[in-house]
Amino acid sequence: MNNFEYMNPTKILFGKNQIENISKEMPNKAKVLLLYGGGSIKKNGIYEKVIAALEGFEVVEFGGIPANPEYAVLMEALTIIKEQNITFLLAVGGGSVIDGTKFLSSAALFKGDTPWDILTQNIRTSKGMPFGTVLTLPATGSEMNSGAVITRAETKEKLGMGGPGLFPQFSVLDPTVIQSIPKRQLANGITDAFTHVLEQYMTYPIDARLQDRIAEGILQTLIEIAPTIIKDPTDYKAASDFMWSCTMALNGLIQKGVPTDWSIHAIGHELTALYGIDHARTLAVILPSHYQYNFEAKKEKLAQYAERVWNITEGTLDQKAKAAIVKTEMFFNELGIDTKLSDYTNDYMGTAQEIVRRFTARGWNGLGEHKNLTPSDVEKIVTMSY
Amino acid sequence: MNNFEYMNPTKILFGKNQIENISKEMPNKAKVLLLYGGGSIKKNGIYEKVIAALEGFEVVEFGGIPANPEYAVLMEALTIIKEQNITFLLAVGGGSVIDGTKFLSSAALFKGDTPWDILTQNIRTSKGMPFGTVLTLPATGSEMNSGAVITRAETKEKLGMGGPGLFPQFSVLDPTVIQSIPKRQLANGITDAFTHVLEQYMTYPIDARLQDRIAEGILQTLIEIAPTIIKDPTDYKAASDFMWSCTMALNGLIQKGVPTDWSIHAIGHELTALYGIDHARTLAVILPSHYQYNFEAKKEKLAQYAERVWNITEGTLDQKAKAAIVKTEMFFNELGIDTKLSDYTNDYMGTAQEIVRRFTARGWNGLGEHKNLTPSDVEKIVTMSY
Repeated sequence: MNNFEYMNPTKILFGKNQIENISKEMPNKAKVLLLYGGGSIKKNGIYEKVIAALEGFEVVEFGGIPANPEYAVLMEALTIIKEQNITFLLAVGGGSVIDGTKFLSSAALFKGDTPWDILTQNIRTSKGMPFGTVLTLPATGSEMNSGAVITRAETKEKLGMGGPGLFPQFSVLDPTVIQSIPKRQLANGITDAFTHVLEQYMTYPIDARLQDRIAEGILQTLIEIAPTIIKDPTDYKAASDFMWSCTMALNGLIQKGVPTDWSIHAIGHELTALYGIDHARTLAVILPSHYQYNFEAKKEKLAQYAERVWNITEGTLDQKAKAAIVKTEMFFNELGIDTKLSDYTNDYMGTAQEIVRRFTARGWNGLGEHKNLTPSDVEKIVTMSY
Repeated sequence: MNNFEYMNPTKILFGKNQIENISKEMPNKAKVLLLYGGGSIKKNGIYEKVIAALEGFEVVEFGGIPANPEYAVLMEALTIIKEQNITFLLAVGGGSVIDGTKFLSSAALFKGDTPWDILTQNIRTSKGMPFGTVLTLPATGSEMNSGAVITRAETKEKLGMGGPGLFPQFSVLDPTVIQSIPKRQLANGITDAFTHVLEQYMTYPIDARLQDRIAEGILQTLIEIAPTIIKDPTDYKAASDFMWSCTMALNGLIQKGVPTDWSIHAIGHELTALYGIDHARTLAVILPSHYQYNFEAKKEKLAQYAERVWNITEGTLDQKAKAAIVKTEMFFNELGIDTKLSDYTNDYMGTAQEIVRRFTARGWNGLGEHKNLTPSDVEKIVTMSY
């Protein structure tokens, strides 16, 4: 096991009706900016519950944060924060709204020239404006971590940011919110969380036995509850397991002390930036090619995953490892998630070269758990995914 | 899954040489009380490392906190805290030193008549004097939770306390400390952590799939590393898995959203108070009788544990469940831990009645995940353990 530091101060309020308790977690006399997305919270009753829970606080609203939170939109919210002397941010939404809120938390206190520097110059945020979240879409894990990904349409860029000052003070996880989420987004959420775990697990053996077991436990749980979630999102038991698994998949715990990969995300982000493909679906496109291409480096963990998660006990190590890739792709397909780039766009020729060009323009750092993937490797992986 | 709240703000510094980094985690100009136990830290080099790391801080020392931290001894430390205007406590030791430090953290700011009231009146501590820990003996999990157990020899009592103000600010987990721990204490540590997990897991099914998987993962890890730890505690990989498993066993995570039992600890504490038997060994004495006596209530989870942790796939549910109890007792025995009260004292007659008398005198609340165990049940469980 590698040395590590771990701290996660976010308070989780999990379960039915926990929205009622948010005012106890907020600073007295906070002036609140309530942030949300396209307005689904006004249809499913969550907006009313939040407003009721905020009684006694001065509340300003900012709706319309899009999926892949857009820099230009967030800059409008930043203006409101400054003009209205906001002191607390409350994100009510999925990963995009929460990520956008993290950007605002950082930007509100940022002293530099332009907040876009936070993203392009990898500036870590040690202190942000305090914020809480009410999660409406389990998937990204943003509700219990300190990272965010922000998109800028103008430059077709999608970049990450983070820092210890960007943990939510609290996050409400009420599994009943799942009832009103479209099947497409539920499938995306399962795929996203599943891939989060694999990015932190599918590397090489390092004898971090407990981290492996917890990662495998999240994968097993997602596999077990996926059919129920898609068929009947009102099943509260399955919804609870789904919601908690998504949070645990990316709250920092399973990555501590182990190598991590994150190539699939790095490449996938470019597919979203280029074609607007749903984040989770870009992961499902890249994952099989990435694991096939890097088979030798990953086959020991692939075989362990095959045995423990998919109960594949027959065959050689190589056979098990290969079967695990097939099983994973089938799992995505059964959720209704296509796994080839050509399923999403006819305009895919040249994508591999364009992604390499973008990576190289930003300075090539190498990808993967060994940081040894070259531009040529990435070009081949993306080409295999066509 | 039940509703829950979860927050754990303790910062973990895990790995070799992390002691060097403690000063970064401490308030500037803190006046530190360094607390430790019987002095083993002066033989194994940890004391020197801590003193070196504290350069620049004013440090007062208080050694001699005994196993089962004794109220009378801690009251001496409290006098020093007040007389010397201490502002930060640093526990260097195992669960006893850390628990004692938590008591002092609470008592230092306590406004009531006598600090013993914190224990007898179940007063929750919302704010204590800040403290950190350097763990020297993996076992209790106290390094990443907010609970403590304090003993008072005068009255032969052993009582619990806790509250959100009693999380360590930081804890150093350096697996190399295991090298100098006697085998007896390593066996105790494994048994203690193992039983912590079972107290939070061995109840009844509630469809908290991920909590179950994580609990099972800790148990599997402890079973896998136990022989290596006892044979060669210099094995850093096994030591790392051991240390992290002990912390994760009782940092609050696996108990969230699920019923918990804790009868084994409640009864075991009395055996320590009465006979001075090592805490972990009292758990190993009570666990098999408790699970046999409450077999019907627990058999579904016992069978799940049999299958997933011990790979017992043959037989009926009842047969698997029974085999799991046998396997658990054998696991303790293989660690050199005896599992009958008569292995520890010849004076065991009447123990069951005395424990019931003590529980009843404190007000009977019922024990177990259903709070339905009666004095007569406890009497039978303890008698079965003779």
